[in-house]
Amino acid sequence: MLSLLKEEKVFKDPVHKYIYVQDQIIWDLINTKEFQRLRRIRQLGTCFLTFHGAEHSRFSHSLGVYEVTRKIISQFERNQYEDWPREEKLLSLCAALLHDVGHGPFSHSIERTFEMNHEEWSCRIVLGDTEINRVLRRVSPDFPNHVAGVIAKTYGREIVVSLVSSQLDADRMDYLLRDAYYTGVNYGTFDLERILRVLRPYRGHIVVKESGMHAVEDYLMSRYQMYWQVYFHPVTRSAEIILNKIFARAKKLHEDGYGFRFMMQPLFNLFENQLRLQDYLLLDEALMQTVMRQWTLEDDGILADLCRRFLDRDLFQYVTLDSAQTQGIELLRQHMQSIGVDPAYYLEIDFPSDLSYDVYRPGEHDEKLPILLLDQNHQLTEISRKSEIVRSISGIQMGSYHLYFPAELVRDSGAPIPPDILKQSGRNN
Amino acid sequence: MLSLLKEEKVFKDPVHKYIYVQDQIIWDLINTKEFQRLRRIRQLGTCFLTFHGAEHSRFSHSLGVYEVTRKIISQFERNQYEDWPREEKLLSLCAALLHDVGHGPFSHSIERTFEMNHEEWSCRIVLGDTEINRVLRRVSPDFPNHVAGVIAKTYGREIVVSLVSSQLDADRMDYLLRDAYYTGVNYGTFDLERILRVLRPYRGHIVVKESGMHAVEDYLMSRYQMYWQVYFHPVTRSAEIILNKIFARAKKLHEDGYGFRFMMQPLFNLFENQLRLQDYLLLDEALMQTVMRQWTLEDDGILADLCRRFLDRDLFQYVTLDSAQTQGIELLRQHMQSIGVDPAYYLEIDFPSDLSYDVYRPGEHDEKLPILLLDQNHQLTEISRKSEIVRSISGIQMGSYHLYFPAELVRDSGAPIPPDILKQSGRNN
Amino acid sequence: MLSLLKEEKVFKDPVHKYIYVQDQIIWDLINTKEFQRLRRIRQLGTCFLTFHGAEHSRFSHSLGVYEVTRKIISQFERNQYEDWPREEKLLSLCAALLHDVGHGPFSHSIERTFEMNHEEWSCRIVLGDTEINRVLRRVSPDFPNHVAGVIAKTYGREIVVSLVSSQLDADRMDYLLRDAYYTGVNYGTFDLERILRVLRPYRGHIVVKESGMHAVEDYLMSRYQMYWQVYFHPVTRSAEIILNKIFARAKKLHEDGYGFRFMMQPLFNLFENQLRLQDYLLLDEALMQTVMRQWTLEDDGILADLCRRFLDRDLFQYVTLDSAQTQGIELLRQHMQSIGVDPAYYLEIDFPSDLSYDVYRPGEHDEKLPILLLDQNHQLTEISRKSEIVRSISGIQMGSYHLYFPAELVRDSGAPIPPDILKQSGRNN
Amino acid sequence: MLSLLKEEKVFKDPVHKYIYVQDQIIWDLINTKEFQRLRRIRQLGTCFLTFHGAEHSRFSHSLGVYEVTRKIISQFERNQYEDWPREEKLLSLCAALLHDVGHGPFSHSIERTFEMNHEEWSCRIVLGDTEINRVLRRVSPDFPNHVAGVIAKTYGREIVVSLVSSQLDADRMDYLLRDAYYTGVNYGTFDLERILRVLRPYRGHIVVKESGMHAVEDYLMSRYQMYWQVYFHPVTRSAEIILNKIFARAKKLHEDGYGFRFMMQPLFNLFENQLRLQDYLLLDEALMQTVMRQWTLEDDGILADLCRRFLDRDLFQYVTLDSAQTQGIELLRQHMQSIGVDPAYYLEIDFPSDLSYDVYRPGEHDEKLPILLLDQNHQLTEISRKSEIVRSISGIQMGSYHLYFPAELVRDSGAPIPPDILKQSGRNN
Repeated sequence: MLSLLKEEKVFKDPVHKYIYVQDQIIWDLINTKEFQRLRRIRQLGTCFLTFHGAEHSRFSHSLGVYEVTRKIISQFERNQYEDWPREEKLLSLCAALLHDVGHGPFSHSIERTFEMNHEEWSCRIVLGDTEINRVLRRVSPDFPNHVAGVIAKTYGREIVVSLVSSQLDADRMDYLLRDAYYTGVNYGTFDLERILRVLRPYRGHIVVKESGMHAVEDYLMSRYQMYWQVYFHPVTRSAEIILNKIFARAKKLHEDGYGFRFMMQPLFNLFENQLRLQDYLLLDEALMQTVMRQWTLEDDGILADLCRRFLDRDLFQYVTLDSAQTQGIELLRQHMQSIGVDPAYYLEIDFPSDLSYDVYRPGEHDEKLPILLLDQNHQLTEISRKSEIVRSISGIQMGSYHLYFPAELVRDSGAPIPPDILKQSGRNN
Repeated sequence: MLSLLKEEKVFKDPVHKYIYVQDQIIWDLINTKEFQRLRRIRQLGTCFLTFHGAEHSRFSHSLGVYEVTRKIISQFERNQYEDWPREEKLLSLCAALLHDVGHGPFSHSIERTFEMNHEEWSCRIVLGDTEINRVLRRVSPDFPNHVAGVIAKTYGREIVVSLVSSQLDADRMDYLLRDAYYTGVNYGTFDLERILRVLRPYRGHIVVKESGMHAVEDYLMSRYQMYWQVYFHPVTRSAEIILNKIFARAKKLHEDGYGFRFMMQPLFNLFENQLRLQDYLLLDEALMQTVMRQWTLEDDGILADLCRRFLDRDLFQYVTLDSAQTQGIELLRQHMQSIGVDPAYYLEIDFPSDLSYDVYRPGEHDEKLPILLLDQNHQLTEISRKSEIVRSISGIQMGSYHLYFPAELVRDSGAPIPPDILKQSGRNN
Repeated sequence: MLSLLKEEKVFKDPVHKYIYVQDQIIWDLINTKEFQRLRRIRQLGTCFLTFHGAEHSRFSHSLGVYEVTRKIISQFERNQYEDWPREEKLLSLCAALLHDVGHGPFSHSIERTFEMNHEEWSCRIVLGDTEINRVLRRVSPDFPNHVAGVIAKTYGREIVVSLVSSQLDADRMDYLLRDAYYTGVNYGTFDLERILRVLRPYRGHIVVKESGMHAVEDYLMSRYQMYWQVYFHPVTRSAEIILNKIFARAKKLHEDGYGFRFMMQPLFNLFENQLRLQDYLLLDEALMQTVMRQWTLEDDGILADLCRRFLDRDLFQYVTLDSAQTQGIELLRQHMQSIGVDPAYYLEIDFPSDLSYDVYRPGEHDEKLPILLLDQNHQLTEISRKSEIVRSISGIQMGSYHLYFPAELVRDSGAPIPPDILKQSGRNN
Repeated sequence: MLSLLKEEKVFKDPVHKYIYVQDQIIWDLINTKEFQRLRRIRQLGTCFLTFHGAEHSRFSHSLGVYEVTRKIISQFERNQYEDWPREEKLLSLCAALLHDVGHGPFSHSIERTFEMNHEEWSCRIVLGDTEINRVLRRVSPDFPNHVAGVIAKTYGREIVVSLVSSQLDADRMDYLLRDAYYTGVNYGTFDLERILRVLRPYRGHIVVKESGMHAVEDYLMSRYQMYWQVYFHPVTRSAEIILNKIFARAKKLHEDGYGFRFMMQPLFNLFENQLRLQDYLLLDEALMQTVMRQWTLEDDGILADLCRRFLDRDLFQYVTLDSAQTQGIELLRQHMQSIGVDPAYYLEIDFPSDLSYDVYRPGEHDEKLPILLLDQNHQLTEISRKSEIVRSISGIQMGSYHLYFPAELVRDSGAPIPPDILKQSGRNN
């Protein structure tokens, strides 16, 4: 039943040059409607409003994770490493391809407001009544469970899980390179080919040959730079905050029995907390943007204004805060209320460390699998014990508080306002 | 009233590294809602279904055309060429930025079905009641007219028009590089910096210093390759054909008084041939995809199926045709009818030369301004008279007939079918 | 005796990222003194005087040819093509690595003046009393003969010869990419990975799958551009001409019994036409440059001046000639004689087609193996019969006559000189 | 007297795309014989024996430093920063171009053995009887002194000195990018264009706008990686050690009155400590390699063997040492003596921190000018006070002791040897 394609298929890819598909199952998974749906969900959410090139989709990234995984396994097979369980190849490839299939539009905001989790949705798609499930079951009745297990990190063999989900996994390796490519920054570039060469399967782990330590340092520095330069860029955060406010406002209106002029079924079910799998699969960025565009015509001024701001990129401005400015913020809050701008929807204090920055911190619990170096005496050592540079990156506590609000509204009102804050605000990078 | 920004602003761009904005007017144009709308329209239409990386928007490209124009003018100013009319700088930059602002979603299909033209819409946006118009009028009451004139190629000074619209214009130079970058092919790369160095303003034209002939040859070869490898790729054409059929079917249903379960106002007005500027500005790919998704639930089986095919990338397959196969096609057509598949919506013969491939053909009328070489004796010569390679590219008649149809349906029916055609059909590259 | 290395070795390479060595024999060949000698011979001869980045050696290129060959064979093996004779792998790799090992310093000039041929020297090195020969004989006593046979294109199996030496061979594929990389021009870039994917062993030939035709067109265009933009650049030619004159003058002086103040044994034996293998291996660019530096102190003014010109890059200037200028040249020649500048050493007419430009011309005899396309019906067709672009490149007769001479000397003399010629001369690009 | 070129000249450069020359003086300096000599001296000394692509010359790098300086100044002028002294432009460009003109072949080894300094030689060339001096004097009689002053860092205006020589100077910015390009590693890449944008002339310093801090971090990380991955690579060090031993042996032989079979005048004068400027200018890598090749035939076995080892890349092997191995080393030393291998020339302990690794350490004296950040309140802060990442790089004490010796000789002798050391030795990366 399982079979290789008669002839290898390729996808042209700007990051890996080509993505090679040899298995019929992989080819068929890519052609399912659930996987094709990823074309309508951007990889970097609101980041394209800061870096206009970052318009690439989760479809591209998912193919990339598959390809990096394929390359790692191919190296393991070529070198005939005994610690690599060859029978896990197809499972690894499928899990790599599908690990993000549960992402929805603007995942961070929606997951936060409605307490959902894209990993759970990935598993539901793999296990539910979907084209993907039907393709996977052709391998064996249990196969969808195995794939879901790898995605949920509960699968019995750590080595398979760690390919897709660890401190040095195919997911991260692809997204750093891809996001760097599409944004145009070059912080994210590192020597993928060298890292692939120094990975080794070893007693149930994937480890790094010690001579590759500097290449891993370089990869971790890229990650550090990408987080602070790209992923946490304040303009991206500003757009994210507006999205959060839009969802919060709409949810509140729904709870209050507000009659929306425009509503679509999947969104209604989301509000009702009754989102079914088939609803979820209809939620994509096209739908969300269309809804937001219609909502600019709603009677509720806040919802209408926030949607307009998002679509027309009329974002909140931001100021960087010292800790001492609590009083200034309170004054600003009062002032906004006095001019009729509701701070609950128009003012936000944001601190990046609230976010899921996965800095490499080996000691912490609930942590992804750490990076282990394998030396010539076959000893394993966690990398930060050997690398001062990794140690110092791990220890860095960065990020500042930022205050986001529509400064132009405050400026245009004639009322007295806290001068320290306003003078610093600027629209953009 | 006109002023430079206090400090130069930049956009990080993968193709040009940075895009530099020095004028307040340019900055304000970029921030209008009409310009931001371009973020929701892909540069390459359906091409992302062939090259998954090609998800970039007309927003990115428009910034790029602006930047190439800025670089050309900057070179002219730095070298103090007398034939460059310095007072036309801002006009040139605005026209470069805005020349594509009238593009709608999947322009080719919509323009074809509904007999519209994006250049006209660009002019209507520039001249109508828009934020863009208000920004432009700050320069002078006439300024929007001038910008529209450059876009419509009616502006009195050819040199300004040719910056944005000629055989070697900023538009093409950006899109070849950008499309190559995002698709990942390297056919489109040429030495932009060298071409910029050899451009000269000369007696109302923009011409090329003769020593740059080889660089221009290389640019024309890139163009040739991009057309045949990327823009006319049969898989892209297949998606385009399905789009054409969707619009044709929906228009037909509307004319027949069909009651759509789901309809949105701008689209309704389009069908009624009463599209107003404000409607047009709401038409973006998000809306079109949302509508198509809803239409997969329509009672009309053909419309529902075609929409599903487009969104799930279940495209028609294709075969390359010899001229001699007319009979085979007729048999196929009859067979499709006999199994209940309407050839009017499921069968299409396509020949690329029907398309607007702008091969460089200097002699033809209705042609963009040709490329002129300026030699040391100040003589101008059209390039194909000096370059054999350009002459040979110009003369090439390429492209084959392709037949597109859902081969799997025909295969699955048990009826006898023309063997010559079916055996060649394949889903994909 | 033959064995794989315990662990794959790599060389970091800017063009191919890494060069992989798996065989002990290859590793040992690279470490022979004859192969290491290639580090002292530049790949592009005098081209670095035009493109300062082109300082790379034949050592780098030879590794590159090896790597491209390894990649082609690896693809053949991975796809288990039956027409590839697996037992020829090591022979192919050794021949690829060693095919240029017989190159001397400034090969073109020396070979021309002293009627030698680097291919013959490659064979002599492979077959003679050398470290390379000793390594090869470890494979089998006949093995050096086989390697020499492939280099000399007399080996019985065309498929092995064509890997290293055909119209689409590993040699060309590496040098186009490498020379483009080091000079910094981007004409030479083509999609190597795609070409590798479409190569097929087929009935004793290496052919190209028809769907790869456009990739081959792109490769041939790169070759065309590199020849005219880089390899035949008039400044490079000017340096080459001075070298020719230096060797001609030194040979003449030697024949006339001139007593050189400085001479080195290998060079003396070259002049005596008694160059032994051990002499030849001592001839490298270091020696030649050192000799030329010393010769700037010779009594013979012509030799001293020419050597100084070469080392200090005080090259002859050039003018492009119309055919009608025969009379002007004769006047110039007489004038040079009248001011004491010997035209035999200071005046040269040069026409690129005298050079070994290997334009792709399938029909000519004494030609490298042509490029064959393999279609779906297993028919082979020579590419120019299917590709108009290849046909047009093949037919192009380019190149102009250039006249090289020290224009400043003529200018500085007060005598009347042909105005047509002088006014055009310029030092440089 | 001073004048712009009639038309801008360019050099094609792989790193900066083009190098632009607008001044006649710059053009003439490039064409002097002293500057052309830099083509015969590799930028990275022995590094090409580790990274075969690193064959680029100091000529290329010097042009690059000039170009980076030109770009910085051009940005200053374009933005009309008042703190930039416009009259210093030509001086800055000349100093940038010439700052390395005093480098000799394998500078580190020769300077160490013969106690010389290339910076002094640069000044002697600028001030002495040279073509360069004659060109510079055309600007003004004092101009050569000014140029020498900038090179020697004694020129009165710090801002000019710091362009060419500081922690963030044009020299480093070019060499990191260039060495990364030619070796093929991508550690050295950073965003030059962004750094150029954030440099500001400010009260006699060149400082960095605070918003550019991350770009500078990235540059310092690149520098850190390049040092450990490329510049201090043990194979490069091994070649360097052999060179040191060659010069030490030859000097010793000369002092002992040994009669060299082959000697050249400049080298003899070097040994006699009587090196004149005209001798120095004849010392290039061609001469040194030719001499070494001849010395492989010397009677002195040590000199002959070391020269052969260098030219044929038969380097010493290395082991990484723990501090505890003093006893093992002593045993090895005795053993080498017992088998007739002189440890004075065949054994070396090497610690990278002995080398001039210019890690960024702001606090140390005798330090290059530190990097200052300019914040919005016009305050200057040394970067490591704001950047944790810079602080951690500055504090890192890296590098291990390596022991270099010809392990194969020891192995092949039958005597008992310290097993700890030998088992680790390997030829190469």
